[in-house]
Amino acid sequence: MRRISPDTKPLVVVLVGLPARGKTYIGRKIARYLSWLGYSTRVFNIGEYRRERLGTHLRQDWFDATHAEGSAARSEMAQAALADLLAFLKGGGDVGIYDATNATRARRDEVAERCTSKGCQVVFVESICEDPTLIEANIRETKLRSPDYAGVDPEEAARDFRARIDHCARVYEPIQDDPLSYIKLIDFGRLMVVHRIHGHVPGKIVSFLMNLHLVRRPVWLTRHGESEFNREGRIGGDPDLTADGDKYARVLAYFVREKSVTPPVIWCSTLRRAVQTTRHMPLRALQWRALDEIDAGTCDGMTYDEIEAQLPKEYADRAADKLNYRYPRGESYADVIQRLEPVIIETERQTSPVLIVAHLAVLRALYAYFTDQKPEECLTMEVPFNTVIELKPGPYGFDERRHVLDLNG
Amino acid sequence: MRRISPDTKPLVVVLVGLPARGKTYIGRKIARYLSWLGYSTRVFNIGEYRRERLGTHLRQDWFDATHAEGSAARSEMAQAALADLLAFLKGGGDVGIYDATNATRARRDEVAERCTSKGCQVVFVESICEDPTLIEANIRETKLRSPDYAGVDPEEAARDFRARIDHCARVYEPIQDDPLSYIKLIDFGRLMVVHRIHGHVPGKIVSFLMNLHLVRRPVWLTRHGESEFNREGRIGGDPDLTADGDKYARVLAYFVREKSVTPPVIWCSTLRRAVQTTRHMPLRALQWRALDEIDAGTCDGMTYDEIEAQLPKEYADRAADKLNYRYPRGESYADVIQRLEPVIIETERQTSPVLIVAHLAVLRALYAYFTDQKPEECLTMEVPFNTVIELKPGPYGFDERRHVLDLNG
Repeated sequence: MRRISPDTKPLVVVLVGLPARGKTYIGRKIARYLSWLGYSTRVFNIGEYRRERLGTHLRQDWFDATHAEGSAARSEMAQAALADLLAFLKGGGDVGIYDATNATRARRDEVAERCTSKGCQVVFVESICEDPTLIEANIRETKLRSPDYAGVDPEEAARDFRARIDHCARVYEPIQDDPLSYIKLIDFGRLMVVHRIHGHVPGKIVSFLMNLHLVRRPVWLTRHGESEFNREGRIGGDPDLTADGDKYARVLAYFVREKSVTPPVIWCSTLRRAVQTTRHMPLRALQWRALDEIDAGTCDGMTYDEIEAQLPKEYADRAADKLNYRYPRGESYADVIQRLEPVIIETERQTSPVLIVAHLAVLRALYAYFTDQKPEECLTMEVPFNTVIELKPGPYGFDERRHVLDLNG
Repeated sequence: MRRISPDTKPLVVVLVGLPARGKTYIGRKIARYLSWLGYSTRVFNIGEYRRERLGTHLRQDWFDATHAEGSAARSEMAQAALADLLAFLKGGGDVGIYDATNATRARRDEVAERCTSKGCQVVFVESICEDPTLIEANIRETKLRSPDYAGVDPEEAARDFRARIDHCARVYEPIQDDPLSYIKLIDFGRLMVVHRIHGHVPGKIVSFLMNLHLVRRPVWLTRHGESEFNREGRIGGDPDLTADGDKYARVLAYFVREKSVTPPVIWCSTLRRAVQTTRHMPLRALQWRALDEIDAGTCDGMTYDEIEAQLPKEYADRAADKLNYRYPRGESYADVIQRLEPVIIETERQTSPVLIVAHLAVLRALYAYFTDQKPEECLTMEVPFNTVIELKPGPYGFDERRHVLDLNG
C-alpha cells in the first residue's frame, strides 16, 4: 500500500443517497482518480451483486421496505458486498468504495462499526439533490440503460424506477448530527459540507469532489505538429515546427473552430513546438509548465539508438521499469504523473471543451486518467501525429474517437 | 507568479468573523503554508492599520457602530488595507489575505465587487464559534497580549474586549445565501461548509483548514545519531549508526519519555541511521519515505571535496541555485519540499507531540515551514547533531528551544 502517512489506515468510502443521485458516478470518479494516483482502489456496487445473484427481472415492488423477501435479500447482499470490500482491503487494497444507498442512520452506524472494527478509516459521501430536472436526466441517461430495464419500454421503465426511488425515500434519513466523518455533496458540488474529515486521501477526495460537475464537454488530446527533432529521431530539446508541423497547426485550428459550440479552453506546454502548434487558433492558448514533455535530463537531444549504444545501462534500466525509471538529471513517468495532477483537477473543473497540445509521455499519462486505466498500461501506447484523440464523458466513463487530420485538407 | 493553472487569477482570501474567532490565527497559518509552497502571500490586518495610524489607546466605545468618528475611521482604514492588498497583487503577489471582520453582507459584496473588478478571484473564509470557553481562551491568549491593552489590568482589558465583540455582534450577519465562494469553518475545523470553491489554490486552502486544530503540542526535530558516513564526511548512502550514534538514540529516548505528557507520535525516515535512532523509544516509530534525505543521485556516497574535484560543474551549479539544483539522477530541495507537503499536513493534524527523526536537507525544509520562513532562507542553516529543536506553537507562530543532549548523560 502506498501509505503516505504512517497512521494511514485502509479507507472505506461509503456512498449515501437516494437512487438517481449520482452515487455510482461519484464512486467511479473517485476510484479512477485514486487509482491513477497509485492507490489500489475498487468499487463494490450492490446493484451488481443483485443482478449477478437474482438477475435483472425485479421490479419496483421488490424494493419496497415492506416486501419481506426483497428486504431480506437486499440486506444479505449489502453484507456480502461489504464483506468483499473488507477482504479486498485486508488483501492489500488501499481504498474500497461501497456503492449502496445506506439510507438509514442505523445502517450507516452498522457499516461504520464493522469497518472500524477491521481497522479501517470510514468516510461517508452523501449526495443530495432535489432538483427534479437533474434527477430525471439521471434516470433517463443511466437507469434506463441499466441491464435491469433491457427491452423494457422507456416510459414504463422510468415509472418503475421512480417508484423504486419513492420506496427508498420513505425510509431515507439524510446524514444529520451523525458523529461520523462525512462529506455532503449538494447539487453535485455547488455546496459541500465537510464534517470531521482529516488525513491525506480524504483531503484529496474533498478537493476532487469540489471540482465535480455534470457538464459533458469533450477533452481533445493531441501531440504538437512535427518538429525538427521528430524528423531526426531525437528526443527532448526545444525545436521549432517543420513546415508539415505548421500545416498541422492550421488544420488543428480549423478542427477546433468547426467542433466547438462553446469557446474551448486551449492549453499547451511551454515548449516551442507545442506553443507553435496553437498559433493559428481562434483563441490564445495558455501555457502550462506541467504539460512540458518528460525531462530526459542528460539524454535530452539523443536518439534512442544513441542511448542504447552510449548508455546501455540506462537503456536497460528504463526498459525494466519504465514507470519509475528516472532519466539522469531528468524525470520518470511517475514524476510526470505527480506534476500532472493539477492539470487533471483543472480539466475536471472546466465546463468548456478542453484542447491539450502536449507531448508523447504527458499524453500517455493523461490518456490513462481519462480512459480509466492504470498509468503503467499506457506507457507504450502509440499517440500518432496529426491526430486528435477526442474523449467525451458519458454517464460512466468516456467515449473515444480519433480524428486523423489531413494536412492538405 | 507561480500560476499552476493557466486561468489562475491572483487570489484574495477575505476573512469573516466576530472578534476572537481566530481570524488572524487562520490567516497567518494560510499565509505560512502558501508561502512555503512558493506562492507570494501577504496578510493585510486592519488592526495593524488602526494601531499604526491612531495608536493603541482606543477603547470599546470607539468600536460601536453608532460612534460616528470610529465608524468613519474604521471604514477608511478598511479601504486602505484593501487598496494595499490589491496593489500587492498587481505588483506580482499571488495571494492577499484580508484580515478584518467583514461583518455585514453589504461590506462583503463591496469587497467582492472591488476585488473582482481588479481581475482577482475571491474566497471568503468565515470562522464561526459559539463555544464560550474557546472564545474566552482566545481573548486571554491573544487579545490581552495585544499592544491595544499594554499596561491595562487584564480583567479590565477582557471586559473592554468583550464589549467590543458585543458591538460587532449587533451588526454581524453570518454568510448565508450569499452567492459568493466561501468556506465556513465551524469550531475550528469540526464542521466545514464549502460553497462554490474551485481551483487549485482554494482547494489547497480547504485541505489545509480541514486539518486545523487548537491543541498546542510541540514538534521536535532532530537529525539521526552519528553514522559511519558522517564520520567519513560522505553524503547519502544507507550506513549504520556509530557507537556514539547509538548513545544519542538512548538519550533521545530518555528525552522523549521525560518530556511527553501524552504519548508522542514518532516519525523517522526509512533510512537505517534514522530508524536505528528510534530503536530505544518507548513507542515504535513509523517510517516515512517522504522523510528520506535528499537523493544525491550519482553523487551519493561522495564527499563534498570529491564532488568539487571530480564534478566542478555540478558543484558550481549547486552553489548558484541550491533550491532548484537537482543532483544528477537525484533531487533538488524544491523536489524535497514537494514530497514533504503531506508530512506538513499530517503534522498539523496531530494533537500529540510529534518527534521527527530525519536528515539535514529534510529538516531544513521542515524548519522553514514551522518557523514561517521561506525555504531558501534555510538552505544553509546548521542543524547540529545530538540536538532536539523544539518548536511549540503559540497563539501566533512558534516558540523555539534547542535541547543539546549529553551523550553520557
